[in-house]
Amino acid sequence: MTEKKISKEHIQELILHFFRELVPFNNLLGIQVDSSTESSKASIKMKPEFIGNSAHNILHGGVIASILDIAGGLVAIMNTSEELENKDPNYIHKRLTTMSTIDMRIDYLLPGRGQDFIATARVIRRGSKIAVTRMELHNEKNEQIALGTATYLVG
Amino acid sequence: MTEKKISKEHIQELILHFFRELVPFNNLLGIQVDSSTESSKASIKMKPEFIGNSAHNILHGGVIASILDIAGGLVAIMNTSEELENKDPNYIHKRLTTMSTIDMRIDYLLPGRGQDFIATARVIRRGSKIAVTRMELHNEKNEQIALGTATYLVG
Amino acid sequence: MTEKKISKEHIQELILHFFRELVPFNNLLGIQVDSSTESSKASIKMKPEFIGNSAHNILHGGVIASILDIAGGLVAIMNTSEELENKDPNYIHKRLTTMSTIDMRIDYLLPGRGQDFIATARVIRRGSKIAVTRMELHNEKNEQIALGTATYLVG
Amino acid sequence: MTEKKISKEHIQELILHFFRELVPFNNLLGIQVDSSTESSKASIKMKPEFIGNSAHNILHGGVIASILDIAGGLVAIMNTSEELENKDPNYIHKRLTTMSTIDMRIDYLLPGRGQDFIATARVIRRGSKIAVTRMELHNEKNEQIALGTATYLVG
Repeated sequence: MTEKKISKEHIQELILHFFRELVPFNNLLGIQVDSSTESSKASIKMKPEFIGNSAHNILHGGVIASILDIAGGLVAIMNTSEELENKDPNYIHKRLTTMSTIDMRIDYLLPGRGQDFIATARVIRRGSKIAVTRMELHNEKNEQIALGTATYLVG
Repeated sequence: MTEKKISKEHIQELILHFFRELVPFNNLLGIQVDSSTESSKASIKMKPEFIGNSAHNILHGGVIASILDIAGGLVAIMNTSEELENKDPNYIHKRLTTMSTIDMRIDYLLPGRGQDFIATARVIRRGSKIAVTRMELHNEKNEQIALGTATYLVG
Repeated sequence: MTEKKISKEHIQELILHFFRELVPFNNLLGIQVDSSTESSKASIKMKPEFIGNSAHNILHGGVIASILDIAGGLVAIMNTSEELENKDPNYIHKRLTTMSTIDMRIDYLLPGRGQDFIATARVIRRGSKIAVTRMELHNEKNEQIALGTATYLVG
Repeated sequence: MTEKKISKEHIQELILHFFRELVPFNNLLGIQVDSSTESSKASIKMKPEFIGNSAHNILHGGVIASILDIAGGLVAIMNTSEELENKDPNYIHKRLTTMSTIDMRIDYLLPGRGQDFIATARVIRRGSKIAVTRMELHNEKNEQIALGTATYLVG
């Protein structure tokens, strides 16, 4: 066992790096992310291939579900960074790569019209094993398109 | 008003055509669909860009949400084809293009490992305005990856 | 057909009367309600028979689900009072007595400790047939015990 | 530390005793329960005070939520009885009394008409900390009234 210490700031960089570079589906959708330990943002630009309904040019519900899950999962794991501080690197790696979504509910409030969409998420329940997050999706006019709640396994 | 009648079989073809050709996001993911009025199938092949977690090569939760929503929405609208029979074409077009997902819950049961995934959906509540569907996702080993429930506005 | 007009204020009184007097299960639990067209409140006092876990003296999850559903359903139907104004009394009666919960999700955030619990609800999506509401439950220390989302058939 | 061993059969009896005698709200509703490690049943008889809508004499949605949560929670904890076998009695007591519902979704499929209602539940995901269960409520005519999914903290 080495004596190498890993600060919480470094862990947070690792998490952001993971979400930015090592999640191929995020890259396919072109999702940009940022997060503190308390709240996260994920943004996406409308593209023709994201349309769910050609008659109305609105975002597909699956794209909305994807970006809400990404924002929720990111803040759920960022929220654990303090307790991971100074832990063994292998343990940290295992924790970061084994987190998973247990369940998610999405409420679609308005048709997904717009050019720029931002999902925001925050942690509403935090236990040693479980985090529950609330997510919202707004367009560039600040109209709320969708609402989500998800439960993550983080421990 | 023309006297042209539209049979339920023709309406079902229109619905399948809509889901196969006029939903760009389905095409981006390469999702194949089929449906009766009672149950639907949507299938997808694993591709590197669908991976959610590079450490484990598993399907992203957003892809799972997308295919479950597609299967549920398809059978929800197919289920209305009998009552649309012989209605005015403009009315039928409006009904088909204004259906929307109200809410969806997804339970992720196993990591999304595999090469071929099939979502199946059936209608569990059908009213004049609302349909509720249950969806399941299995891989090619018939392991159940996820479970979904969704409420659709169909009237 | 009589010419009798029914104002929205009178409809709101009818709705509150219905929830206060004609819902026996609300009375069994001793739930008190009030509501505008935009937000509602439902309150309950802890009693020994509401306990779900004798080891910890916390409110049963079913009591929490009940009060959240009551608060959500109340504001969902109050929200329709403007469009019911001046409609036929039989039609109004039918609308008020046929509303129903389509689905509900509850997130339990903290153990239900306390003496006085207040559920608040507001409408987050309103269509001609469907209302979606968000509900929260707090105890007398303003700790948030639970969060809910429900979809109601109101048309 | 004593050498006393506690068999899984004895643990199951303890769990059933807990649900039958130490959950006051179950007693208020008169809910009867039974369970194996794989599936549970909870039954309730209609009483006037359980009515949610005096115009239609149907079961209140909160009663439905309550019985579904009871059935789901019971099988979730029964499912852990094998791994608790021969553990220290204090540890077993702690595990049994600290389980909790994380979230629940209920889909109301038909109005709750009938005299006898039976909820059934089974475990669909089982991890070391989390169990996910599916629940159904039927009346004495075997009509399905409601469907539920819940996530429990069991570890």
